[in-house]
Amino acid sequence: MTTLPPTMFAITLVQDGYSGEATGPYIDNVGDWLAEAELPVPQPGPGQVLIKLRAASVNPSDLHFIKGEYGQPRVKGAAAGFEGCGDVVATGTGAEALQDQRVAFVTAGSGAWAEYVLAPAIMCIPLRPEISDEDGAGQIVNPLTAMAMVDIARADGDAFVVSAATSQLGKLMCRLGRDLGLKPIALVRRPEALDMLRDSGAVEVLLTTDPNVLQSFAKVSQELKPRVFLDAVADQLSEQIFCAMPNRARWISYGKLSNELPTLTQTGQLIFMGKQIEGFWLTNWLTSTSPADQARVVAEVQARFSDGRWKTDISEKLSLRDVVGNLTEALKKIDGKVIITP
Amino acid sequence: MTTLPPTMFAITLVQDGYSGEATGPYIDNVGDWLAEAELPVPQPGPGQVLIKLRAASVNPSDLHFIKGEYGQPRVKGAAAGFEGCGDVVATGTGAEALQDQRVAFVTAGSGAWAEYVLAPAIMCIPLRPEISDEDGAGQIVNPLTAMAMVDIARADGDAFVVSAATSQLGKLMCRLGRDLGLKPIALVRRPEALDMLRDSGAVEVLLTTDPNVLQSFAKVSQELKPRVFLDAVADQLSEQIFCAMPNRARWISYGKLSNELPTLTQTGQLIFMGKQIEGFWLTNWLTSTSPADQARVVAEVQARFSDGRWKTDISEKLSLRDVVGNLTEALKKIDGKVIITP
Repeated sequence: MTTLPPTMFAITLVQDGYSGEATGPYIDNVGDWLAEAELPVPQPGPGQVLIKLRAASVNPSDLHFIKGEYGQPRVKGAAAGFEGCGDVVATGTGAEALQDQRVAFVTAGSGAWAEYVLAPAIMCIPLRPEISDEDGAGQIVNPLTAMAMVDIARADGDAFVVSAATSQLGKLMCRLGRDLGLKPIALVRRPEALDMLRDSGAVEVLLTTDPNVLQSFAKVSQELKPRVFLDAVADQLSEQIFCAMPNRARWISYGKLSNELPTLTQTGQLIFMGKQIEGFWLTNWLTSTSPADQARVVAEVQARFSDGRWKTDISEKLSLRDVVGNLTEALKKIDGKVIITP
Repeated sequence: MTTLPPTMFAITLVQDGYSGEATGPYIDNVGDWLAEAELPVPQPGPGQVLIKLRAASVNPSDLHFIKGEYGQPRVKGAAAGFEGCGDVVATGTGAEALQDQRVAFVTAGSGAWAEYVLAPAIMCIPLRPEISDEDGAGQIVNPLTAMAMVDIARADGDAFVVSAATSQLGKLMCRLGRDLGLKPIALVRRPEALDMLRDSGAVEVLLTTDPNVLQSFAKVSQELKPRVFLDAVADQLSEQIFCAMPNRARWISYGKLSNELPTLTQTGQLIFMGKQIEGFWLTNWLTSTSPADQARVVAEVQARFSDGRWKTDISEKLSLRDVVGNLTEALKKIDGKVIITP
């Protein structure tokens, strides 16, 4: 076993619990939320492993969490970050098989933005050698979310709607939809993204900034009959899109990119048209999906990254020591993911 | 077979199609929506029966429909009204068994507010002799809705929330809940209704006009953990009640008594807490529920009216010829149903 240092550098949470607000996955003043700290290197307990970080990803869920807007409370002074990849350098009872393996991981609470990370063994996936550290750092949250949500869409027909489709997750879902012979309908904000989304597999790409977007969508909806709306925005336009969808449509919210609170303008759509509004959270999916189904999805994710069907677009790499100073700037680049290295 | 007159008196729809609005189940100026007419007595086609009306009920769904705010389009000049009871005086092919029976019925389109009514045989229920015409007139829409919705609630635990609980349907659901050993939580607007709802079986009755209603509800919700909210109001308070419910709660909308459009203030509740918002419409339930299950529910409804566990509270009886002149006034009486007689 490698000799471990007693302490490690980490980016930690400044605040506790929930904020009670929903301001979106943006960070203007990183210092209000995150601090640098030297923490003790943790010891793996039963079923846990200690991982020496190679790369961590910055997901919208990390930003929501850091600001107290996520589904679990913050613990002040603990390291931030949910997901990454690295080498298992110590194991607790029952997790010995992972010793010395390079794994993708998600942490149980948080703690990925640190030189060493504690993770439950069941949340670690050994990485095939051909998968890069960058792809490995974003191997779980977005890809599993994409697989799980496209699975939900597929059960309800071939067409489905994806908002904020230029996000990493949006692109994964469009590509996956195309590969499965489905018809992804992408909603994007910027005209420059139209071609990219068509290349990513969307059969229709609509501009949310177009004043006629609802008429255009109504036409597409009538033709393709999408029943599932995978929505990361949750603004009034989302509600209008939902209202323009056919009978039995499901508005599945998985993010809140907009600060606008949507108003339900047509209760009759729920009553008479059998539509419904629900949410998706990977954590809930993981606890409600059988291990066999999860294993199938994980294998499919790795196969897609191995053969190049999926890849992670990186917009910027930051070292842990640059996070507090430069994360805000780095997040302004819009076409890829920010990766944190030790 | 009785000799039938060539024409009949009926209350007919003044407008066509949908209004595109949602103003609620109230009628201020009946003449804007309804007219008196002498119509030909219809002939039953295959699978249909002709019924000589004994009594028709005025449900909120009738008022929504008359104003073009319901799940099916109006046909100008056709008789209004969905539900009633009467004697089968002529039958089409395949419906002969119902000849001369007293039945409760719902019409396929509308047409119950007339001296003679055409109904599909499968939407007719022969009435036991001990059931009065008044109870028979409201035997299907409200009681089946109550049974179906309480069934949905029961599948998710023992406590459930009922808004507008002083309505006929609200009281049916509270009584049924109590009889099944469940815990109905009633929301009412008027302090005078508190005792009535407790008598009707509600384990908790909360006043929506109390400024502390949300705090009171939060306490009740924490204790009883209701997962289903059967809501006929759909205003901002409904949304707040939903937000105060536990994980996996379902807001099931079946009416729109309020003109206020609710805003979704906490998307995170859908995402992280697995809550969802949906609708209930008896018409959809009837098409998606097996005949055996429907028969079980219908038998249970008649048993409840026969032995007095359920009864219809009548606030006013109007003859068909008084509807246009007096319906607005009659609907102002709040503690019962308006019944229309020939």
